[in-house]
Amino acid sequence: MQTQWDHRYAQRTQRMKSSAIRELLKMTEQADLISFAGGLPAPDVFPVPEFKEACNNVLENSSTLALQYGATEGFWPLREMITRHTQRYSIQITPENVMITSGSQQALDLIGKIFINRGDRVLVESPTYLGALQAWNAYGAEYIAIPSDENGMITDELDKALRCGPKFIYVLPNFQNPTGVTMSLDRRKKLVELADRYGVPIIEDDPYGQLRFEGEHLPAVEVLDSRIRAANGWYSGNVIYLSTFSKLLAPGLRLAWVIAPPEVISKLVQAKQGADLHTSTFNQMIAYEVAHKGFLDKHVVTIRQVYLERRNVMLDALAEHMPEGVHWTHPQGGLFLWATLPENIDTADLLLEAVKEKVAFVPGGSFHPCGGGKNTIRLNFSYSKPDLINEGIARLGRVIKQKV
Amino acid sequence: MQTQWDHRYAQRTQRMKSSAIRELLKMTEQADLISFAGGLPAPDVFPVPEFKEACNNVLENSSTLALQYGATEGFWPLREMITRHTQRYSIQITPENVMITSGSQQALDLIGKIFINRGDRVLVESPTYLGALQAWNAYGAEYIAIPSDENGMITDELDKALRCGPKFIYVLPNFQNPTGVTMSLDRRKKLVELADRYGVPIIEDDPYGQLRFEGEHLPAVEVLDSRIRAANGWYSGNVIYLSTFSKLLAPGLRLAWVIAPPEVISKLVQAKQGADLHTSTFNQMIAYEVAHKGFLDKHVVTIRQVYLERRNVMLDALAEHMPEGVHWTHPQGGLFLWATLPENIDTADLLLEAVKEKVAFVPGGSFHPCGGGKNTIRLNFSYSKPDLINEGIARLGRVIKQKV
Repeated sequence: MQTQWDHRYAQRTQRMKSSAIRELLKMTEQADLISFAGGLPAPDVFPVPEFKEACNNVLENSSTLALQYGATEGFWPLREMITRHTQRYSIQITPENVMITSGSQQALDLIGKIFINRGDRVLVESPTYLGALQAWNAYGAEYIAIPSDENGMITDELDKALRCGPKFIYVLPNFQNPTGVTMSLDRRKKLVELADRYGVPIIEDDPYGQLRFEGEHLPAVEVLDSRIRAANGWYSGNVIYLSTFSKLLAPGLRLAWVIAPPEVISKLVQAKQGADLHTSTFNQMIAYEVAHKGFLDKHVVTIRQVYLERRNVMLDALAEHMPEGVHWTHPQGGLFLWATLPENIDTADLLLEAVKEKVAFVPGGSFHPCGGGKNTIRLNFSYSKPDLINEGIARLGRVIKQKV
Repeated sequence: MQTQWDHRYAQRTQRMKSSAIRELLKMTEQADLISFAGGLPAPDVFPVPEFKEACNNVLENSSTLALQYGATEGFWPLREMITRHTQRYSIQITPENVMITSGSQQALDLIGKIFINRGDRVLVESPTYLGALQAWNAYGAEYIAIPSDENGMITDELDKALRCGPKFIYVLPNFQNPTGVTMSLDRRKKLVELADRYGVPIIEDDPYGQLRFEGEHLPAVEVLDSRIRAANGWYSGNVIYLSTFSKLLAPGLRLAWVIAPPEVISKLVQAKQGADLHTSTFNQMIAYEVAHKGFLDKHVVTIRQVYLERRNVMLDALAEHMPEGVHWTHPQGGLFLWATLPENIDTADLLLEAVKEKVAFVPGGSFHPCGGGKNTIRLNFSYSKPDLINEGIARLGRVIKQKV
């Protein structure tokens, strides 16, 4: 059984490979380049007046606390706020199940630190979030890659893969980075059931779950998992859930959170203490101040409207400007869509020509831990204003037409 | 040669030991307890009006930049400011030699990530900073511990230790945490010379260098190292230098920096990208805004005055309240002093009784990676106001007198 999966184990070729995304982010600094490469939220929706008021309030009333060292677990009222937010979805947690991290990237790093020994296998969707691969490559992870389609990870292939003994399963069920695809309810259930049967924890990375602008909300994997367990009034699930303020308020704060059973939180706290002691108290208090009186719910509605419009503009532009043989996903939320080009096109080469035409994207190959995807690209629709999206896709269409 | 050092290699007993300091910090939350345990700066000197003005300016003029994702290396103007500051000491660096980290703790973690493979040896002073041991234990470091005296690490023992092949040497030359001791100029020179001869890099951790309130400034190890090299107008030294805004502005910002040769910075940037993408852009811009127009130099003078007074109060109180057989260091700067009690006293046990009497300290054993120091304690003098320092030391004196 195991041998047929062997070819999917990625061999870490170097301990920490210089990042394609980082180099791309640098490239986008050219003023006249239209970049669909980064994962940047729309700066237009940053709630600047609310931040100003929050900074003034925090410094006026709580400067001693805000500017001092704080608890590794995070600022207690913020953990309580996240708890209340999570309980809306009928998950019984307490603030003890919540740890604040310095962005979700840190949560991925700490998960690597506590779970992965060199050579351990991690089960991922392919393609998957590049930042997770970067975090775990540093600990010597190898990957079992399960292909995905328009309904997310193809769970029919999970059973065999779980027999290879992965340390954990990593999924992004909502508007996945990079594909924009949402995992169907049936597959979520199948995932939870199989993970439970094999005793393999699930890392559910959900940065965009609140940013659904179309279609019906699906229960988080965490929720499904807690439903199949005896409801003992306490969270003891098989899922470690990650989310972030980066897409809801502002990434410049570097604020995210983990929800996990107490024994996992305890390990993560120890790891975090060695990693950065704690996340900025000041930033945690600002986020709490901005968010806790119901502003966040209103603000999310605004973001959804802006992103829906931009997605629609991108879909229309793709339909208008792409040659035959190019296909793309129709995300119901989030920041990204995913295009598949004719098989003869290597998008890493294409990027160089696109940049000459002043448009950028991320070539899809780097999201595939075990190879493949050379003819795919990730396109971000949240960052650029509608007229630039249209112009950028027109430029990209011209570059691709020269290749087909 | 090597065997006589073998007993000094600490075997990591568990991958990440729950931290004594963290538990202690929790204990200090009792309202009527006087804590000399934490490493907290005086909240009285946090420059709150300057922070307010900086927040308003940053959000008024640069919100799009401040709230967005930023470069992993850090905010360029802040790196330039640190470069100018460093050049005062005749070290030829450029901003490319500077990386911003989420507190110095992150720098220690990233150094562990790029240097340490399980079982690698790290050469440290004993006692040394507990946070460094915590960071590196996670990567499976073992330690070669060089004893120190009132002039810092006893460099006569370095030659033998360097033959055991440590990955790097870790020192805190100024007002060391935990002892408050400053490494003499002769020993600094000897350290630099031997490290160069054996080709072993030095990690110079200097959080308190600016906080000298007495005696004469000594050149940083980094400066001595750059002097013995051919001055080619470019920093290519054997020293990785760490410092922080935690003690100069406020720890709640989680802002520190590393100065290193470009090839080391490049590795650290890759590691940091996987660890937390980047340090809060907002916080970096606030620190720059507060510091760059000369405020920092004035502010440091204030901090020195406050800490000098508090150290003096603690020294006087120790002289008044401690029984015979108790000795302590006389730091010329920084936040800590170190007391040695009669050999029959185990300070871990003593702490429990001290807490009953509403006073706390850190037992010295945990700062010794290879054992020893059971009769020592670390006392922080920066945090508590003078009258509380006096009262706390009186309480501690009573507890110790019951034991001698």
